[in-house]
Amino acid sequence: MHEMQNDELALAALYRDFEANGLAPLWTQRDDLMPFTPAPVARAHVWRWDALFDIAERSGRLVPIGRGGERRAIGLVNPGLPGTGYATPTLWCAIQYLGGHETAPEHRHSQNAFRFVVEGEGVWTVVNGDPVRMSRGDLLLTPGWNFHGHHNDTDNPMAWIDGLDIPFSSYTDVGFFEFGSERVTDEASPEVSRSERLWGHAGLRPISALDDKISSPLAAYRWAATDAALTEQLALEDEGYPATIEQGHAAVRYVNPTTGGDVMPTIRCEFHRLRAGAQTALRHEVGSSVWQVFEGSGRVTLGDEEHRVGTGDLFVVPSWVPWMLSADGPFDLFRFNDGPIIDRLGFARTYLPGQDVT
Amino acid sequence: MHEMQNDELALAALYRDFEANGLAPLWTQRDDLMPFTPAPVARAHVWRWDALFDIAERSGRLVPIGRGGERRAIGLVNPGLPGTGYATPTLWCAIQYLGGHETAPEHRHSQNAFRFVVEGEGVWTVVNGDPVRMSRGDLLLTPGWNFHGHHNDTDNPMAWIDGLDIPFSSYTDVGFFEFGSERVTDEASPEVSRSERLWGHAGLRPISALDDKISSPLAAYRWAATDAALTEQLALEDEGYPATIEQGHAAVRYVNPTTGGDVMPTIRCEFHRLRAGAQTALRHEVGSSVWQVFEGSGRVTLGDEEHRVGTGDLFVVPSWVPWMLSADGPFDLFRFNDGPIIDRLGFARTYLPGQDVT
Amino acid sequence: MHEMQNDELALAALYRDFEANGLAPLWTQRDDLMPFTPAPVARAHVWRWDALFDIAERSGRLVPIGRGGERRAIGLVNPGLPGTGYATPTLWCAIQYLGGHETAPEHRHSQNAFRFVVEGEGVWTVVNGDPVRMSRGDLLLTPGWNFHGHHNDTDNPMAWIDGLDIPFSSYTDVGFFEFGSERVTDEASPEVSRSERLWGHAGLRPISALDDKISSPLAAYRWAATDAALTEQLALEDEGYPATIEQGHAAVRYVNPTTGGDVMPTIRCEFHRLRAGAQTALRHEVGSSVWQVFEGSGRVTLGDEEHRVGTGDLFVVPSWVPWMLSADGPFDLFRFNDGPIIDRLGFARTYLPGQDVT
Amino acid sequence: MHEMQNDELALAALYRDFEANGLAPLWTQRDDLMPFTPAPVARAHVWRWDALFDIAERSGRLVPIGRGGERRAIGLVNPGLPGTGYATPTLWCAIQYLGGHETAPEHRHSQNAFRFVVEGEGVWTVVNGDPVRMSRGDLLLTPGWNFHGHHNDTDNPMAWIDGLDIPFSSYTDVGFFEFGSERVTDEASPEVSRSERLWGHAGLRPISALDDKISSPLAAYRWAATDAALTEQLALEDEGYPATIEQGHAAVRYVNPTTGGDVMPTIRCEFHRLRAGAQTALRHEVGSSVWQVFEGSGRVTLGDEEHRVGTGDLFVVPSWVPWMLSADGPFDLFRFNDGPIIDRLGFARTYLPGQDVT
Repeated sequence: MHEMQNDELALAALYRDFEANGLAPLWTQRDDLMPFTPAPVARAHVWRWDALFDIAERSGRLVPIGRGGERRAIGLVNPGLPGTGYATPTLWCAIQYLGGHETAPEHRHSQNAFRFVVEGEGVWTVVNGDPVRMSRGDLLLTPGWNFHGHHNDTDNPMAWIDGLDIPFSSYTDVGFFEFGSERVTDEASPEVSRSERLWGHAGLRPISALDDKISSPLAAYRWAATDAALTEQLALEDEGYPATIEQGHAAVRYVNPTTGGDVMPTIRCEFHRLRAGAQTALRHEVGSSVWQVFEGSGRVTLGDEEHRVGTGDLFVVPSWVPWMLSADGPFDLFRFNDGPIIDRLGFARTYLPGQDVT
Repeated sequence: MHEMQNDELALAALYRDFEANGLAPLWTQRDDLMPFTPAPVARAHVWRWDALFDIAERSGRLVPIGRGGERRAIGLVNPGLPGTGYATPTLWCAIQYLGGHETAPEHRHSQNAFRFVVEGEGVWTVVNGDPVRMSRGDLLLTPGWNFHGHHNDTDNPMAWIDGLDIPFSSYTDVGFFEFGSERVTDEASPEVSRSERLWGHAGLRPISALDDKISSPLAAYRWAATDAALTEQLALEDEGYPATIEQGHAAVRYVNPTTGGDVMPTIRCEFHRLRAGAQTALRHEVGSSVWQVFEGSGRVTLGDEEHRVGTGDLFVVPSWVPWMLSADGPFDLFRFNDGPIIDRLGFARTYLPGQDVT
Repeated sequence: MHEMQNDELALAALYRDFEANGLAPLWTQRDDLMPFTPAPVARAHVWRWDALFDIAERSGRLVPIGRGGERRAIGLVNPGLPGTGYATPTLWCAIQYLGGHETAPEHRHSQNAFRFVVEGEGVWTVVNGDPVRMSRGDLLLTPGWNFHGHHNDTDNPMAWIDGLDIPFSSYTDVGFFEFGSERVTDEASPEVSRSERLWGHAGLRPISALDDKISSPLAAYRWAATDAALTEQLALEDEGYPATIEQGHAAVRYVNPTTGGDVMPTIRCEFHRLRAGAQTALRHEVGSSVWQVFEGSGRVTLGDEEHRVGTGDLFVVPSWVPWMLSADGPFDLFRFNDGPIIDRLGFARTYLPGQDVT
Repeated sequence: MHEMQNDELALAALYRDFEANGLAPLWTQRDDLMPFTPAPVARAHVWRWDALFDIAERSGRLVPIGRGGERRAIGLVNPGLPGTGYATPTLWCAIQYLGGHETAPEHRHSQNAFRFVVEGEGVWTVVNGDPVRMSRGDLLLTPGWNFHGHHNDTDNPMAWIDGLDIPFSSYTDVGFFEFGSERVTDEASPEVSRSERLWGHAGLRPISALDDKISSPLAAYRWAATDAALTEQLALEDEGYPATIEQGHAAVRYVNPTTGGDVMPTIRCEFHRLRAGAQTALRHEVGSSVWQVFEGSGRVTLGDEEHRVGTGDLFVVPSWVPWMLSADGPFDLFRFNDGPIIDRLGFARTYLPGQDVT
């Protein structure tokens, strides 16, 4: 195709006319547009919690919070996506910081959001008027178009991570945004949110709410439950029963109790626990993930590189970049990814060396 | 149509020939086959727990348990369905009784089954090798084709109710049956079954088990959780939030955590709690239900009759027979019905006087 | 279990008290209630078209048609279900006969219905005001709660078969019924119904009707299309491509174009074509079927018996009774069954000797 | 937030450290990342068929076709997305040109593809070995991972448009690609493909293929059927029946016969017909579309601009840009968009002035 068979002037004119007419030939781009395997521009990368927390703290001292900017949130910028503020092509991930007695005003948006707490406590996120306590190990949801704000009920600052589908929403041009109340609409600080009181009972559904919901109506997934579920999986494995996804590797997916599926239509959330000394298979997966070490330390292989990671450290795995975890001691990790997008649109593939692609 | 217009001899011959040829004319049967509203042969009826328990106890002394008869279970016979052993056209309901250290041998069948415990403890039901403790207020599942047996680990007898879709399975000719082990395959008596350890964490799904299941993989729904869920609904109602299905009437449906839908494809299980003094609307519903009072006392209206009912009493509501509950004091009731059959086949209708049929 | 271990008087009293209290012990009934494989009361049976048609014709002369009786329809009575008017436990099947210029008045009911035409023409069935021509080989639908009546636009009588879920609706007490217009609401006799004009274009859906429907919105499935689909399957088989369900056996399922699933929630309709000389595997299937020979002749094995059958003959296959078809010449058969009930409730099983149960 | 409260040096250091640590603050980007309504970078634009065809013809003379470049396809480049070769953020659209007796070699890829023919004939696209004729008005599918090539069976060139989800697949990093045969694997040129012979019968499904498929198994949607469906909708409207989506505006969606849903998981295809003089409402829709005028002429309003368009002209409507069509004479248009992505992920919204957002 690339050997020109005709006079060069005509060809040059043709290429000029492509451009003049708002056109581009496929044959010069095919390799880039349709690679043999996914060829992400985003890169695997590790961010250190100490550095993030330090910079968040300095922001807390220097940058006020209020209407317009909305949140004191500092996004991870993938080194392959400079200038974007995106952690992966589809996902945004930030550390958010709220000083003692500060309030992040209410707003709502099409973008789906969650928060995960690696340390600290004292903030309540108020979701559609329901105050939800945020504590270590909790996953808190703010699905699309729910009003939400945060307020710190204590004298001490608190930091956590936010995950949103901002890049995907921006890319597909689906986002709407609306300001809400300047203060949170309910300043109470209950231990348990109303959403948990209604929906937080395993296998029991309120008959007053039988319509399925596209996102989970359960606003908080508490650490104690997650920890118990993982502990039981490893104990069952010890007793010889199927429970873990591979030897020494327990894992749960957070789900929408009305469907048993993912908590939100664009974001999958999971928690993984490795026993001391355990190692996962090396996996290629379609779709991009963000991981945060919750507790313990270990190593993560990302493509050709291995990194030591510890509590709070975050790392990104772009699509089809092989990854593997190895646990020094007990090793707990939270992950979120764009799995629901990949699955719902029929693009899921996983490859483990020595096995068939599935 | 019924005035004969032709000579009577020919007509008589015709009717004889219908019969001789294995035929039946619609026009003489239309009213019966296709009534204006459901006209169940089954009747509303109440069974008293004291009488049931007494008769079960006598059976315990007089009738051994073992292979062939399989279970010391005594079924409610609907007075409109004499000779059948059926509580409603679709549902079978029995009191089952197991003496101290007795065993009901293992078997499996297509029929879906559950047990609900109104009093007592000490029996473990072993479902596919997983011993499941049975205690007051618990719902225990044995979905179709799971091996199961029961054994009493104590010196004392225990009784509970069984609910199955035996009539429906028999009617539609869908049932298979297989004998299993004479003894239960695991005689341990753990507090918590393996199924609960794997599946009993609200909103958390083992990643090792992402395929949806037609019946719930959770073998036990414990009373403490049911009680907490109902208590919270009433508390939320007190605080002014939507949670109950009508004033003073809390209710949960037991669901399959892999789908958010009914626990088994033919049987719906629910728990209802009325505040002291509360009264439900009078409801007509398509499909038949069996209720058991779990605690407290009150009155139930069944068509034109009102009955006082107390702990352990069972009553049946055939399709479209209007029913209403009134609570004297706090009033807790378990119910099961054929709702999944009605819903999945598109026949659901509900009517409350003064409202539209939905 | 059956050896009495206690004094006989006490036992006799116990059994009396079962009856007095509306109870029945499982242990005396278990074999009947829960057989090892389905043990239908209904029996395999063949009805001859000549006899049916003759008796329908005589009914046409002797029995008027009108409000109350509603239809001149004569139901097949399964020899195992005497006194019921049912062809199988779940399905009703009748020959319906309408004289020249007669009208069957409009009504509607929860029961799902269809008509299949083995010979003749001249009648229009009017479904929710849409006149639908009935001709040889056509399948015409009247899903639950659609008003419908029939009128014969010619001087000549016409007969066809009706299939309904009357037994199932009666058994589960789900049926509602309402009279409509005495005359059909539209007496036009168009070649093509409005439903076909809107929905009868393969792979094309009106954007004005994107909500899925529980029953097919397509009122008529025409013979020409069915014949073409079967012809193509056999031609593809000849050319070496997968298309038939087994050698020489082409088959289509009639489907709801909004879902790709069965035409109605309780009734599955299919058309089968065997090449001359072809023979099907011997199949055990859960659920009951009614077959009608449309064209040609052959033999059907039903359990231990073999019957010769020809055009118009009907036969019934109860659940799990093995069946096999053998074609003398080209052999075309229509069938309907309760497959959607069986499938949606999780009871489907099929067994072919030499293969695993699926 | 934007009034600095602290000394400027510390703040400058903070912003430097954001960058040094691979971070970006949300508060400076919020407006861009989360606009009040979708703010697409892509722009509404019109491409003229004459210009496209001329440039394709010149390419046909100057640029050979073969392995590597794979296709002589020339993509529309959205003026808001320079350098990309993308028509919208999610969709790629090209004119493809194949000279007499040329072959485009076989390959397969995760990307979903279709072809639509605005004029010409003589090419067969071979999809998984099944030769599919391409003629005026036909929609031809090549869902993800199906091998496909094209060959021109005549002496004359042919051009058509291709639509793919290349941008979406590239953005989400989901694409795999594989070369296949240099020649098409079946050089036959049948009128009708095997896929049409098996699947092209409205409401009839081969029993040999009851598993649902994520993409339509029907490879060709023929013009005659599309035209007939639209003609009937307008005729029904004339007769006073509901059929069109608004006065004078008939429309069909191409669907997967196994589900009744979109033909492919990422791309929706539709055909619209306006009567002479008809005008659509002005619509805002989430998601991006590409339209091609198939026949006739009219005007399209795109945001603030109105364009005259005629046969073959293509135009793009980015997300939430209001659009309206006005027909001079009869006006036929094909459209495809990313509707399945928007719908499956819960982002759909439509707004018509004077109505509520839905």
